Amino acid sequence: MRVEIWSDIACPWCYVGKARFEKALAAFPHREQVEVVHRSFELDPGRAKGDVQPVISMLTRKYGMSEGQAEAGEDNLGAQAAGEGLPYRTRGRDHGSTFDMHRLLHLARARGRQEELLDLLYRANFAEERSVFDDDGRLVELAVAAGLDADAVREVLADPTAYADEVRADQREAAELGASGVPFFVLDRKYGVSGAQPAEVFTEALTRAWGERPPLTAVGGDAQACGPDGCAVPQK
Amino acid sequence: MRVEIWSDIACPWCYVGKARFEKALAAFPHREQVEVVHRSFELDPGRAKGDVQPVISMLTRKYGMSEGQAEAGEDNLGAQAAGEGLPYRTRGRDHGSTFDMHRLLHLARARGRQEELLDLLYRANFAEERSVFDDDGRLVELAVAAGLDADAVREVLADPTAYADEVRADQREAAELGASGVPFFVLDRKYGVSGAQPAEVFTEALTRAWGERPPLTAVGGDAQACGPDGCAVPQK
Repeated sequence: MRVEIWSDIACPWCYVGKARFEKALAAFPHREQVEVVHRSFELDPGRAKGDVQPVISMLTRKYGMSEGQAEAGEDNLGAQAAGEGLPYRTRGRDHGSTFDMHRLLHLARARGRQEELLDLLYRANFAEERSVFDDDGRLVELAVAAGLDADAVREVLADPTAYADEVRADQREAAELGASGVPFFVLDRKYGVSGAQPAEVFTEALTRAWGERPPLTAVGGDAQACGPDGCAVPQK
Repeated sequence: MRVEIWSDIACPWCYVGKARFEKALAAFPHREQVEVVHRSFELDPGRAKGDVQPVISMLTRKYGMSEGQAEAGEDNLGAQAAGEGLPYRTRGRDHGSTFDMHRLLHLARARGRQEELLDLLYRANFAEERSVFDDDGRLVELAVAAGLDADAVREVLADPTAYADEVRADQREAAELGASGVPFFVLDRKYGVSGAQPAEVFTEALTRAWGERPPLTAVGGDAQACGPDGCAVPQK
């Protein structure tokens, strides 16, 4: 079974939702047969790489919140994160473009290091003081810590077209699947779970998707194949 | 859309079937959105690593063919391969255990090099004089040519448990999906295509699987998510 998770590094509910999903997955009896793939979703796709601002100012300007409302929102997120055992800095975080991080996550997927890199990016963005935005050196550091080759990472960062199509294709696919926000979880392209649901909801989705895997529909008749009796051509 | 292909390196119809599938895929309008994953299937799982024998003798001993029948079978396979533009040595090939090759294909998948390695293994087994069986040096050479790191490859070869569970899990899953022979193609876990079918059958399967992708069934209600309007908690 395959679970695809659309998310953004700058999305606090994605950070929290990932932990809740993982709690459900860890207890799922068929977890060894579940493959998880992370897909790109930019919440703020128009933002330029150099356009970095404090989260609180972004919230007041973009959504017209008062500073108090913005801070209360961050406090709530911090408490929800803490409930999942996740560190969260409620003050002093930055907001910026996550496009380069998504490109690196595609490189990491190709190298079998996607999960590692995503966890480090979340941790760096939500819990560490140094900003992850507009700082290639920081991204190289994190990608190397995730097991990627530094030169390969620098090459991707230096070429803004590298993995750019893959990021946009993921984004387009999310829209086709009906997702307007993230996190968005898709199980075997059959079940969708939207948001940082409680672990119980993920357990239900995993259980249903597992139990209702359809029997395969055969296309084509007998054909040339090898099996326990050798590789003979079927006699019609 | 995802296509999983179960196959064995020692399976001539897998070699031929892969080319037929790829012909259909190359002409499929949504090919950019098709992901191909190769899965392990050992046709001769009980064979020890050192137990290598000429294909013709294996065919006469294992399946009770006469030498003439075995040679005619190889000639037919050579002609079918040629029909797909694939080189095939009809005399002098060896048969042996493919377990280590499957383990390396799992390493290659983790490093984004599975397709490259599988093509090189097929080519080496079916078209080149030097045997691929019981020859770690040869496997290291091929894996490095596929873009893998030589030390990582040697480490996997030296440890017979490395990726062994993954090979066995693939094999078990093939049985669960109803495959008794290979190649076996599974599209989005919904459609199954068995054998080296003509390209037209693969085209039909790709088209049907693409067109009949089900709409997602939602599990869980509104939940904490970030979208174009920010990361507010939904008001119930």
